Amino acid sequence: MSATEFFTALPVSAALAGFRPLRRTGTEEVDRAAALGRVPAAPVASGAALPGFARSTVDGYAVRAADTYGAGEALPAYFDLVGAVRMGSAPDAAVRPGGAVQIPTGAAIPPGADAVVMVEHTQVTMPGVIEVTRPVAVGGGIVRADEDVAVGAELAPAGRALRAQDLGLLAAAGVTRVEVRARPRVGIISTGDEVVPPDTADLGPGQVRDATASALAALTEEAGGAPSLRGIVPDDAEALAAALAAAVRDCDVVVVSAGSSVGARDETAAAVRALADSRVYCHGLAIKPGKPTLLAECSGVPVVGLPGNPLSALVVFRQVGLPVLRRVGGIALPPAEPTATAAMARAVASAAGRLDVVQVRVRDGVATPLFGASALLSLLTSADGYIVIPEAATGIDEDAQVTVTMYR
Amino acid sequence: MSATEFFTALPVSAALAGFRPLRRTGTEEVDRAAALGRVPAAPVASGAALPGFARSTVDGYAVRAADTYGAGEALPAYFDLVGAVRMGSAPDAAVRPGGAVQIPTGAAIPPGADAVVMVEHTQVTMPGVIEVTRPVAVGGGIVRADEDVAVGAELAPAGRALRAQDLGLLAAAGVTRVEVRARPRVGIISTGDEVVPPDTADLGPGQVRDATASALAALTEEAGGAPSLRGIVPDDAEALAAALAAAVRDCDVVVVSAGSSVGARDETAAAVRALADSRVYCHGLAIKPGKPTLLAECSGVPVVGLPGNPLSALVVFRQVGLPVLRRVGGIALPPAEPTATAAMARAVASAAGRLDVVQVRVRDGVATPLFGASALLSLLTSADGYIVIPEAATGIDEDAQVTVTMYR
Repeated sequence: MSATEFFTALPVSAALAGFRPLRRTGTEEVDRAAALGRVPAAPVASGAALPGFARSTVDGYAVRAADTYGAGEALPAYFDLVGAVRMGSAPDAAVRPGGAVQIPTGAAIPPGADAVVMVEHTQVTMPGVIEVTRPVAVGGGIVRADEDVAVGAELAPAGRALRAQDLGLLAAAGVTRVEVRARPRVGIISTGDEVVPPDTADLGPGQVRDATASALAALTEEAGGAPSLRGIVPDDAEALAAALAAAVRDCDVVVVSAGSSVGARDETAAAVRALADSRVYCHGLAIKPGKPTLLAECSGVPVVGLPGNPLSALVVFRQVGLPVLRRVGGIALPPAEPTATAAMARAVASAAGRLDVVQVRVRDGVATPLFGASALLSLLTSADGYIVIPEAATGIDEDAQVTVTMYR
Repeated sequence: MSATEFFTALPVSAALAGFRPLRRTGTEEVDRAAALGRVPAAPVASGAALPGFARSTVDGYAVRAADTYGAGEALPAYFDLVGAVRMGSAPDAAVRPGGAVQIPTGAAIPPGADAVVMVEHTQVTMPGVIEVTRPVAVGGGIVRADEDVAVGAELAPAGRALRAQDLGLLAAAGVTRVEVRARPRVGIISTGDEVVPPDTADLGPGQVRDATASALAALTEEAGGAPSLRGIVPDDAEALAAALAAAVRDCDVVVVSAGSSVGARDETAAAVRALADSRVYCHGLAIKPGKPTLLAECSGVPVVGLPGNPLSALVVFRQVGLPVLRRVGGIALPPAEPTATAAMARAVASAAGRLDVVQVRVRDGVATPLFGASALLSLLTSADGYIVIPEAATGIDEDAQVTVTMYR
């Protein structure tokens, strides 16, 4: 059994490249104010140019640039002050040859002007007359009406979660609603005769509370999905098949955390095979921890069968479940993850062809691998992050520089 | 004016070290299921040991280890099969010398046993008799009752936002409610006669929609705060002082995005000074963009006065506003940020003593700095991240390796 599993285990890189369900969530319109982290279904284009009018970038005087040519400290150019522009108002004076209009940063350039002289390069020696002591080029001190965004230009791309600055630009363009992908609904099924709901106050002999479902729900939320906790199913093939069928009907992705015994590990595969229009993509991944992982599709809904051990389940869900979830939710590129560079406190061995995920503590630039007698959840909560030993490597040497993916 | 501003500008490092408001949000109890990203106000201790009973880590047979000593392929040790443990049940048979009880992974170790032999190291040649072909040490194949978590041990520390795995461990321990810091309420005041609400369909001459408030609200949310949009105040000292006083009464942190003209930039300081029990910590930071930044306290509430330009405002809020927000919300250590290492496409100059924040695009390991004629918001939305040129440096050379903080 374990030998068979070992030899049939698929490399994680092959699974990520090959398991590409076509399922996508539908679209929905949301308020811009609620769109942080949501994924536009199509590029958002601007209906108008931004800022929409030529603006001054300095406090000074709007002029015709040609009138300033040759001006200097020794020989200033003289201008008649013919008016002032107020913020948020239409300019009430036009600039004619030899004329200047006072203007604050951000105000609209008056007609006739093609440059703004900074106030620092001017002097007022007589009421109504401005001395300019430095020439300004055409366009100097001005931001064009379409310099931030042209009409029809992309405000935000499709397939990338909206960031704070995107919401700012959408606000500037007056976009009040955004068409986004619906959050992928992720059905989370727990299995195991020993597993009881986490709110169980007093445990019976041999019972454990369901830790995995809560953590999977949180990872789902973080990745932009909507978790749907489907409860705990006993180690019973028919009960699991029924729970799976129901979840597949309701959800965009289904995750099953298996029982931990050898027999229980195979039940997810059996339940998948019991459903119509289903196929098992792989059963067994070359990853440590997490070998007994299943990837399947039921009626086009991706199903991820996770190991029973909570630590293994969470490691595998990060590595192969979240990419599936993001894909279904229309995210084209995975988001950047926090990383740190550190030196390994000691060597860690790995097997060629297997992806090893090693939890580490990072202190003062040194990464200390955390191992336990068994794969316990406290190991994951005390880790600062993890390193991935690639499939081609057979381990990491002591003192080697490694990139640690940091938990937020 | 600009010279004065320059000379009085405080280094950002000095501001971050010196501006440390004592304000903290209160505490509240939330459901574990809603606690992702929330910050425990005190360490969460476990009321019970985990897993709570000694469990098998393998499928096999519970035995007395001493009975296996000397066993080998050539000379197996023989055991009487005296029972089987089921998942989630109390063991119904005890192990006596020479006896073995069948046990699946995760089940409770029966009384009398001190080790579990893996099924792979056994054979059943006669019904009721097990041959063991390899010795097992005391404790082999067993996780202790308190090996994951001891009674009273810390499940989650104070001052660090709860992560997915923390919620898993809290679930395992049966913690249903968590005492956390209340989200800091961040009052966001926009100012400027030219600024109109973002939902304004048609702009009048010289008007711009408020982009900054939407983006600040999103940054606040991402950092665990609760934004409170306080609207747009005209460039009027009394109106701003009144809006500020109201925000200080309601909020834990107040942010004012100033008007962009020279006069407007000073209004936030004047409004702060107009309030009782207020002090200006600094007015002018040695940062580019973002020099005209104000840090103050009014009645113990930190007030951050941002530049009027949206790009500058967002850059400064990330650098100095978010640290204040996290502090007020009880976060002891800033979260890890996504970073990438890249080579600079071209040199960028900076001034010694000034922190420069340069937006960059990253492609194939090369960081290209983005500059515009003016500091436009589209520059921020098209950036993949930013680099920080430290105060001590006078620039970055072409081809230099830099760490880019990536936007998510």
